[in-house]
Amino acid sequence: MTTDHTATPESVRVHRIPERGHYDRETIDAILDASIVCHVATIDHDGRPLVIPNQHARVGDFVYLHGSAASRNLKRAGQGVDISLSVTLIDGLVIAHRLFNHSINYRSVVLRGIAQQVESNEEKLIALEAFTERILPGRWAEAIAPDEQELKSTIVLRLPITEASAKIRTGMPGHVDEEEDLTKLWVGVIPIEMVAGDPIPHPDIPADLAVSGSVSAWAAAHVSGSAG
Amino acid sequence: MTTDHTATPESVRVHRIPERGHYDRETIDAILDASIVCHVATIDHDGRPLVIPNQHARVGDFVYLHGSAASRNLKRAGQGVDISLSVTLIDGLVIAHRLFNHSINYRSVVLRGIAQQVESNEEKLIALEAFTERILPGRWAEAIAPDEQELKSTIVLRLPITEASAKIRTGMPGHVDEEEDLTKLWVGVIPIEMVAGDPIPHPDIPADLAVSGSVSAWAAAHVSGSAG
Repeated sequence: MTTDHTATPESVRVHRIPERGHYDRETIDAILDASIVCHVATIDHDGRPLVIPNQHARVGDFVYLHGSAASRNLKRAGQGVDISLSVTLIDGLVIAHRLFNHSINYRSVVLRGIAQQVESNEEKLIALEAFTERILPGRWAEAIAPDEQELKSTIVLRLPITEASAKIRTGMPGHVDEEEDLTKLWVGVIPIEMVAGDPIPHPDIPADLAVSGSVSAWAAAHVSGSAG
Repeated sequence: MTTDHTATPESVRVHRIPERGHYDRETIDAILDASIVCHVATIDHDGRPLVIPNQHARVGDFVYLHGSAASRNLKRAGQGVDISLSVTLIDGLVIAHRLFNHSINYRSVVLRGIAQQVESNEEKLIALEAFTERILPGRWAEAIAPDEQELKSTIVLRLPITEASAKIRTGMPGHVDEEEDLTKLWVGVIPIEMVAGDPIPHPDIPADLAVSGSVSAWAAAHVSGSAG
């Protein structure tokens, strides 16, 4: 994993505990791709900051966002204005001797840049397929494709991954030193992972209808202990 | 659950699918309390929006944030400026006939308001105890309390819960109508939950040291199937 600090825009540089900062696209992309939701900040029409959750999908050097054509927040963002986007994956609770040293193991990304509205149906479909396939691989081919009306009612935004950084904490609590009695208080990490429960069928489908391949694959990939 | 729309600040009203909007404090507080991390948006020194992950803790009518006294972002926010904060819990993947109707079951909160820096050590300690106890109940009494130097090096911010809304999606995919062949394609929900793995002891503690009560309680409360 290479970290080319010289190419990092100052606007996203990790200042606090800089050794947790990562600026290589491999690391950034992996965190973006593993996150189900993101949080998008804009400056609201009244000049105040506003952050709301959204979904995203990365395709190459761009992150796509989507939402209803009636969404005021997305319309504002599509006018070529600055946005910031962040995702965070929680990997564990870090349990220390001193309350001060308790922490969380996490992987996060911060992006900044100008979001532009996607105009062509061709690019919209590329983005929509990525939204589906990155979350639930295989579903795009199983389900009914978007029609003209659905495409029209969906706004898609494109954000280039140019101002981007990741921040990652892993491993044990720090600051375990001679002042702390290692024989008395348990310290370590509680791993956290996201797991799938058993798929719940819609009450209107036949009881014996087989679970779709994409659904059973996702559930199988998200059982406890399957995290890398 | 009562929803008093008349008391809702327009700045946080849910416009898209308004029936998913909730404005009662019971609903908002439960989502804030169940979220491990939040995302905080500010307007950066260059006038651009910036969103970064943080931890939060609610005490009564306030949400506290904390960070290093050296954090530029928190210092800026502590000067009595506008921030926005959002948390999102992911409860499931919603699997529909039409790709357009795929969704996510989630519970999210958006807060907006002026954050003020906490000055007194007394209030700082109340906030720090809440940070620990809301995540890992019982740890505050087990571990070593913050000393004067640690308190000094920690910035705590206080945000009143006055502009606040929740947005919640639950249940099955919508739009299952006569046009969709209910006998051919599986539709439903894959539940998602956050579970704890087995606690991993620090390599420097004795192998037979008992896991702390707070740690074993948390792990027991976060086994698969324990979500409400």
